[in-house]
Amino acid sequence: MSLPNRQLVLRRRPQGLLASGDLELTQSTVPDLTDGQALAHVKYLSIDPTMRVWMAVDTYLPAVAIGAVMRALGFAEIVESRHPDYKKGDRVTGLTGLQEYAVLDASAKQTFQKVPKIPFVSDTVFLGVLGFNGLTAYFGMEIAQPKKGETLVVSAAAGATGSIVGQIGKIQGCRVVGIAGSDDKCAWLTKDLGFDAAINYKQADWKEKLAAATPNGIEIDFENVGGEIMHAVLERMNLHGRVILCGLISGYTKGDPGLASFGTVLVKRLRVQGFIILDYSPRFMEAATQLGQWKMFGKLKDRETIVEGLEKAPEAINMLFTGGNTGKLIVKV
Amino acid sequence: MSLPNRQLVLRRRPQGLLASGDLELTQSTVPDLTDGQALAHVKYLSIDPTMRVWMAVDTYLPAVAIGAVMRALGFAEIVESRHPDYKKGDRVTGLTGLQEYAVLDASAKQTFQKVPKIPFVSDTVFLGVLGFNGLTAYFGMEIAQPKKGETLVVSAAAGATGSIVGQIGKIQGCRVVGIAGSDDKCAWLTKDLGFDAAINYKQADWKEKLAAATPNGIEIDFENVGGEIMHAVLERMNLHGRVILCGLISGYTKGDPGLASFGTVLVKRLRVQGFIILDYSPRFMEAATQLGQWKMFGKLKDRETIVEGLEKAPEAINMLFTGGNTGKLIVKV
Repeated sequence: MSLPNRQLVLRRRPQGLLASGDLELTQSTVPDLTDGQALAHVKYLSIDPTMRVWMAVDTYLPAVAIGAVMRALGFAEIVESRHPDYKKGDRVTGLTGLQEYAVLDASAKQTFQKVPKIPFVSDTVFLGVLGFNGLTAYFGMEIAQPKKGETLVVSAAAGATGSIVGQIGKIQGCRVVGIAGSDDKCAWLTKDLGFDAAINYKQADWKEKLAAATPNGIEIDFENVGGEIMHAVLERMNLHGRVILCGLISGYTKGDPGLASFGTVLVKRLRVQGFIILDYSPRFMEAATQLGQWKMFGKLKDRETIVEGLEKAPEAINMLFTGGNTGKLIVKV
Repeated sequence: MSLPNRQLVLRRRPQGLLASGDLELTQSTVPDLTDGQALAHVKYLSIDPTMRVWMAVDTYLPAVAIGAVMRALGFAEIVESRHPDYKKGDRVTGLTGLQEYAVLDASAKQTFQKVPKIPFVSDTVFLGVLGFNGLTAYFGMEIAQPKKGETLVVSAAAGATGSIVGQIGKIQGCRVVGIAGSDDKCAWLTKDLGFDAAINYKQADWKEKLAAATPNGIEIDFENVGGEIMHAVLERMNLHGRVILCGLISGYTKGDPGLASFGTVLVKRLRVQGFIILDYSPRFMEAATQLGQWKMFGKLKDRETIVEGLEKAPEAINMLFTGGNTGKLIVKV
């Protein structure tokens, strides 16, 4: 077919925020399909903090190799298929990479999921509420085992995962307090999503406001940020509290800030549980079904920040660390 | 009776190790007993790292007040009683404080336990294997949920708690590796207590030796030390490992070292569980019974470092932080 395929290739491991040249826009040609392959046309790309980690070091997945197409979760449509599982017109989500076309191969260990067409639901929901963000919020809250009336604090609360975490907390009867980086984000959390309070950590007196918003202390910290914010939340935790360690964004561009004081974890008998959503893949359908019901009944609201153009993906990744997005950040290819 | 009572009173919150004058040896007079009181003659005092914390800050117990007798666990004999629960000759353990005589009062919330006289068992065992150290090891290992063949690493392994932790690990079928501060201590762990390996962290290549001793990684970290040692152990943890956070001795005299990297906890999906033995008091009898059986059948060996004289207690406390003791550290009053 000689179809051109624009791709973003990793050329250099970034230092701090992504710099020009870390990801290079290149063009290759889509190869002819062989038996067992399908060609997917990428429509939307999910932009997630973990991508910055993938660019830097081996973690729960190996680091992206220098010279390889940058790893990313995408929503795509099958445009041609010699693959037993897919036919033309099928819609899938999975690790498409930052490119216009991805080849799905029956012989490779790939994890693509077919997704249905649902009336009145945008395609992008499968990258957000019904995608990894929703699943992460769902299973993270399962680990947290919230009880009615407990106080849940979630950091990066206006992000794609945090905003769902807080809403699940409300469904489960918690007092929910979000921490976010602007007054606008905080207003969205309390006015639209039903959070009981939201704290703008860029205000000088945010720790006092956190204290005022958690008069009975904190039972659950859904931690997406780490560093100083985590430290401040731990200071207000009650005995036997649970820390759901989902992300440590504050360290992804600046180096792991660690935790200044570990004694709190001991003295307060906290349970700190790290988790990675991929461990829950056998239960994704169960969770997506529940999330879909909540979404349908209006109990899970979302917002998207959509950036147009594959070439804008590097800027979009940086937005995650500079506070540029509210809700789910997506690149429309 | 006008019985003199030598006491160590807290005069100053220590900076670093205890300095002369932080605890002052004073003499008071034992008051006449009123109804509901008993007088206990303190024979042995348990010297524990947590005492340094009690001298400094409010934690799971309030800090000892300036001017008060220093809090300490002791073994004592009732010498006179108008208390409904005790008669002359009864033997008890509890928070006697660093003094020769303690008054037990039925109207006060005190937690003294009567202990039996067991043939061939020293009185001091009730401050060690059958005391808080044994109980801490027992319940900590319950939190760890060890499976046969898993690798357990315990820090401060030649201490009163660590040495029991490792032996319980062996009883439960773990590969047990201890971290301690001298070759002599390491030899005791492997030759006498049956540890599979022991690492002297004062040797320059101790991290390489830890790696060699844990060829299949680590499932359980029983953490007594914190800081750099904890960091090195976490680096070798396997996915879904458990960190039993029992103590952070490395920070008690030098300030909380925190944890340099927290990403490991997330990426490896670790469960970090802080715990304080006092939470388990309703189950002390159950645990002591099991520990007693193990002790009787020779499955729990112990060693004591005994310092003679109440006035030596401040030096004894410092020994905990300079590596001076092996096994249980006790002051004989």
